[in-house]
Amino acid sequence: MTTPQQAPGETRPGGRTARTRQAVLAAVLEELDEGGFGELTMEKVAQRSGIHVATLYRRWRCIEGLVCESLTDLSGSVPLPDTGTLPGDLHALARSIVAFYGEPRMRRLIEAVVSAAARDPQAATVLRTFFEERLPLAGRMVERAVERGELPPETDPVEVMSALGAPFYYRMLIARRPVDGRLAESAATAVWAAARAGAYTKKGSGPVDDATGPHAGATS
Amino acid sequence: MTTPQQAPGETRPGGRTARTRQAVLAAVLEELDEGGFGELTMEKVAQRSGIHVATLYRRWRCIEGLVCESLTDLSGSVPLPDTGTLPGDLHALARSIVAFYGEPRMRRLIEAVVSAAARDPQAATVLRTFFEERLPLAGRMVERAVERGELPPETDPVEVMSALGAPFYYRMLIARRPVDGRLAESAATAVWAAARAGAYTKKGSGPVDDATGPHAGATS
Repeated sequence: MTTPQQAPGETRPGGRTARTRQAVLAAVLEELDEGGFGELTMEKVAQRSGIHVATLYRRWRCIEGLVCESLTDLSGSVPLPDTGTLPGDLHALARSIVAFYGEPRMRRLIEAVVSAAARDPQAATVLRTFFEERLPLAGRMVERAVERGELPPETDPVEVMSALGAPFYYRMLIARRPVDGRLAESAATAVWAAARAGAYTKKGSGPVDDATGPHAGATS
Repeated sequence: MTTPQQAPGETRPGGRTARTRQAVLAAVLEELDEGGFGELTMEKVAQRSGIHVATLYRRWRCIEGLVCESLTDLSGSVPLPDTGTLPGDLHALARSIVAFYGEPRMRRLIEAVVSAAARDPQAATVLRTFFEERLPLAGRMVERAVERGELPPETDPVEVMSALGAPFYYRMLIARRPVDGRLAESAATAVWAAARAGAYTKKGSGPVDDATGPHAGATS
């Protein structure tokens, strides 16, 4: 009865299983606060959470799986705004992303998840599945913008949301610097301008009305 | 006499030291072809390259350091275009990035590097230093665009180049799908539109002339 987004043990949300899960995920975060992913082990999580290590192995198979579930569990809680305009929504979501990853433990968590996915195919599937489910939800703001006439009808909502997220992951994982409000501002402004210019249309259709200026032709 | 971009053993480019380095970096790639980062060890690289493992440890300290140097060594060879227009340069560079990371071994390498950086502060420094040196070089294309009047004078070249690269790393590390020509097209088109709209100006200055259309005011 479990689906990809449903973790083992999630079938009884209010019960002992759910409490176990919360204790374990909290322990993962606390361990990451202290040591980073390189030092994280199932045994440490078991000790801190008070859950038997055999239970952890049975439910999450490996530390990679556990770390991925921690991220998906937490980042699923980032609110999806509905301010009435797409620029408003983009700026609000970008600020929420900064608030989320502004905490060092969350930055360590995403590093741990990407490391886990590089080493463990099952962790990679958890990560990919999470974003495959989350992006279309966030993409609702793009669909609403298309309905309002703010964007070209062929705009791909998932591409727009991927483009909004990309600068934050680049900043943390590649540039290796913290995210900040300036990045949120820049990311939201950039995606709005690019989406209006037709950069995220489903089949490479042209720019919308006057949104791109006289040089736009040079891009194709 | 070594500088951050200079690896140990690079002081005699044509000599035995350089040949050793090339053999070791080639062995890293071949090992990644076969097993991924999870199975990579100094011992395997030593065996494949024919270089003594003590030499590897002396020069690179850990497998993380070696993997980071492999990436910086290889990606430094991606050509920086000068086509005469910024859109032309952005599209050319985006296509080069796709050609580079289109190879599965390169994708495995960037995964390995990000994992390494998550676990080893020295590897993180190598990665950050590489991008800190590489981005301003690539940013020359933005400076030329500003000189030609294509972009607002306050445009930050490093921010523009970061924005161009971000979607590729997001695609590989987070969405966990391969990069392709369509992404190159979208990334270049998006950055051009966003840069013209003033998304990457140094102190949040406004959009340039008519490049953003009537809705631009809603972004601020």
